[in-house]
Amino acid sequence: MSVKPHQCALVAVFAANVKRRRLELGLSQEELAEAAGVHRTYVGMIERSEKNVTIYNIERFAMALGVEAATLLEKP
Amino acid sequence: MSVKPHQCALVAVFAANVKRRRLELGLSQEELAEAAGVHRTYVGMIERSEKNVTIYNIERFAMALGVEAATLLEKP
Repeated sequence: MSVKPHQCALVAVFAANVKRRRLELGLSQEELAEAAGVHRTYVGMIERSEKNVTIYNIERFAMALGVEAATLLEKP
Repeated sequence: MSVKPHQCALVAVFAANVKRRRLELGLSQEELAEAAGVHRTYVGMIERSEKNVTIYNIERFAMALGVEAATLLEKP
């Protein structure tokens, strides 16, 4: 399964939802990284659709952003 | 990030949703595997919460099951 993250529409949906929710909360990428327990650069990569994250990390971000995980995969 | 799939509640939610939807459609694991373009054993592993799948594979299963990806992460 050698599809690159940029080629998967749902990766971009997740990226946009994470970024929008982070900005709603007034968090920096650094603050979100700390809340989610991930490295700061990882948040940037996610928001640039460079990461095909796993369910486990979807859950970490959902908890850090105070939303249900499913909402982070909802198309606009 | 050495959390095992079984330790992540959302992995079990995804597992249950995939299985329920597969059964709703009257598909065997083999048929779903073919529709999603994955190996048959992979479907079994997912339904037993043994796989921490990525966004890309969530999308493959959503398409094969005819649902929005977000619904596969919705808690019951």
